[in-house]
Amino acid sequence: MSTAAAAPSFDPCDPVAVAQALIRCPSVTPEDGGALGVLEAALAPLGFVCHRLRFEEEGTAPVDNLYARLGTEGPNFCFAGHTDVVPPGELKGWSIDPFAAEICNGRLYGRGAVDMKGAIAAFVAAAARHVKAVKETGDAPKGSISLLITGDEEGVAINGTRKVLDWLQAKGEKLDACVVGEPTNPKALGDMIKIGRRGSMTAFLTVHGAQGHVAYPHLADNPLPRLARMLTAITAEPLDAGTPHFQPSNLELTTIDVGNPAHNVIPAQGKATLNIRFNDLHTADTLLAWLRERLDGVGGSYELDHFVSGDSFLTPPGPLTELVADAAERVTGRRPEYSTTGGTSDARFIKNFCPVVEFGLVGQTMHKVDEHTALDDLTRLTDIYGEVLRNVFDRIG
Amino acid sequence: MSTAAAAPSFDPCDPVAVAQALIRCPSVTPEDGGALGVLEAALAPLGFVCHRLRFEEEGTAPVDNLYARLGTEGPNFCFAGHTDVVPPGELKGWSIDPFAAEICNGRLYGRGAVDMKGAIAAFVAAAARHVKAVKETGDAPKGSISLLITGDEEGVAINGTRKVLDWLQAKGEKLDACVVGEPTNPKALGDMIKIGRRGSMTAFLTVHGAQGHVAYPHLADNPLPRLARMLTAITAEPLDAGTPHFQPSNLELTTIDVGNPAHNVIPAQGKATLNIRFNDLHTADTLLAWLRERLDGVGGSYELDHFVSGDSFLTPPGPLTELVADAAERVTGRRPEYSTTGGTSDARFIKNFCPVVEFGLVGQTMHKVDEHTALDDLTRLTDIYGEVLRNVFDRIG
Repeated sequence: MSTAAAAPSFDPCDPVAVAQALIRCPSVTPEDGGALGVLEAALAPLGFVCHRLRFEEEGTAPVDNLYARLGTEGPNFCFAGHTDVVPPGELKGWSIDPFAAEICNGRLYGRGAVDMKGAIAAFVAAAARHVKAVKETGDAPKGSISLLITGDEEGVAINGTRKVLDWLQAKGEKLDACVVGEPTNPKALGDMIKIGRRGSMTAFLTVHGAQGHVAYPHLADNPLPRLARMLTAITAEPLDAGTPHFQPSNLELTTIDVGNPAHNVIPAQGKATLNIRFNDLHTADTLLAWLRERLDGVGGSYELDHFVSGDSFLTPPGPLTELVADAAERVTGRRPEYSTTGGTSDARFIKNFCPVVEFGLVGQTMHKVDEHTALDDLTRLTDIYGEVLRNVFDRIG
Repeated sequence: MSTAAAAPSFDPCDPVAVAQALIRCPSVTPEDGGALGVLEAALAPLGFVCHRLRFEEEGTAPVDNLYARLGTEGPNFCFAGHTDVVPPGELKGWSIDPFAAEICNGRLYGRGAVDMKGAIAAFVAAAARHVKAVKETGDAPKGSISLLITGDEEGVAINGTRKVLDWLQAKGEKLDACVVGEPTNPKALGDMIKIGRRGSMTAFLTVHGAQGHVAYPHLADNPLPRLARMLTAITAEPLDAGTPHFQPSNLELTTIDVGNPAHNVIPAQGKATLNIRFNDLHTADTLLAWLRERLDGVGGSYELDHFVSGDSFLTPPGPLTELVADAAERVTGRRPEYSTTGGTSDARFIKNFCPVVEFGLVGQTMHKVDEHTALDDLTRLTDIYGEVLRNVFDRIG
């Protein structure tokens, strides 16, 4: 735990300056690259109590995380995000050094500019302005503001948010509402708030038979026609028709592998892998039952293994979603759509602790070369987060 | 061409001695190991004109073959076989050195004992006895007796029988009937004559789609459900119900491969390989049409490549089949079944030149550890081949 830190070399109220300082840290997952130090340097002088949390597990790289809290009273409003970024990929594809944080034509370029160092910078600047404004009124600050920042979101996500939440729970620390700064807007700031995410389950099917020579099939038992029929059965009809807030659940076959190089040999087994992105009509158990019903319909010996990388979740429209949507509408003039589309995020872990929504920058260039955000978006996102901080303690209990 | 050879160190009238001399040559395909030299040494003193034919083709190992003919008149009765053997496999699995040709409890052990050095030895001994017997009568010998022996049957079969037949054709050499010495008897000598073989076609299916992220399937086109449906369609019903002399044609899927290690990626393509063993109702063209009809029924972009390693053939019951069946029945007391079951043999090439059947030893231990033949079977097969030689020129024109 550290409360004192060197004064930052940038103005924490300026989201562009904070974003530049963060982008200049080469924090390609799971490296920290100094990014959490930048945040501590900005937050500690504002009064945030900063906890640097380093987690590791056998077989995984150690990961640095940060939990910073201003205030001790509830409710505790949390901003969650990640300073790690995906690799820049082919450097020759970039027009500008991905870690130089250069500004060009009103845009800030760099890996992480939208996913999601820019949003973290906007929240830090909003918090800094908020603290200053509250001080100027002389009123007692309401509730607590916290930041949960991980360095392990783009990677395996084992030593990051999940372990920080365990640590918070062990400490008795409570979160009351959370906004994750993922780039949720497809085209323009204010387009979309994510109020839930589909879950993701990967399943591994192995179908068994008995090896033999193709000329003597009666002495063998070819598992591949059964495998084909099983895969046909589980892709023949959709899992569901969707819900008011979710797309239909979707199953994709990702690979089928036998690896038999001999054209005259019937193989002993065949394997397939599938991934299901599922809505709130399903859990891993209902999905496995749905799969087994269809596999058993074909019959024969098979194994079905699986892992769930995230259950589905939904924060139904209510105080938190309205709070963020109102703030976005006030700043941008547009009312964001509530959506549950797309991949997974660390919100899948946070949803077990408090209501959570995601709102950040425009995602168009995320994970691509020449990732960038409009400076104007950075400024307006800072205003939106500021509006959230101004109203959160009146609207969320 | 050579007509003089050193006298053999064994009695060519003794099938066991000839078989032992052959087994002691380690002729693991495509090596000759001295095996053809053993045959030349046995045949040349009997008056056979021996041609050693070495063929090679870019990308394949050179192979030694032998064509030996006694007599210049027609009809030309040919015995065809191969001196190459499959590898012995794990030596520790053998109770006896696979190339020592040891006799134990009335059985001759060794790689090739039944497939098919034993049968070649039986034919050589039968021919030696026949030549001696004809000489003793003082009559002019009828027709010609020839041996077509390859060292490339267990391998790729490119530089073997096929090329010898081309060479014979170029020379204007005619074959009038042929017996191949493959081990055709499932359990006891006299069980079965092969009067035809199914053809074999291997086909390679590639189904195309468009790669993408599993969370955004509308931006991708997963080829794997189509692949599964195609494989289900082509394995749903048999190709035919068989014919009076043939089993139903049979299709086996041998492998399905995608090789996509990423659980969150929809792959761009999937591949499958299948092998069809087909009867005389089909040709490669009708099979491809049958496949395409079902693949097109599923639809989408796919490629279908193929190769045919042998067309089906049938030597309908008639003079040659009766000749061999009568001989087997006279010696063993049982009438062999006419069959077209099992894998392919070099008869698939010979059938384009003359009627051909297959009859040899009992196949139970072929390609296995401790391959062996009963000495009694060797003796009786020699008698059967002898009976064939005695009658062939009266019954085949």
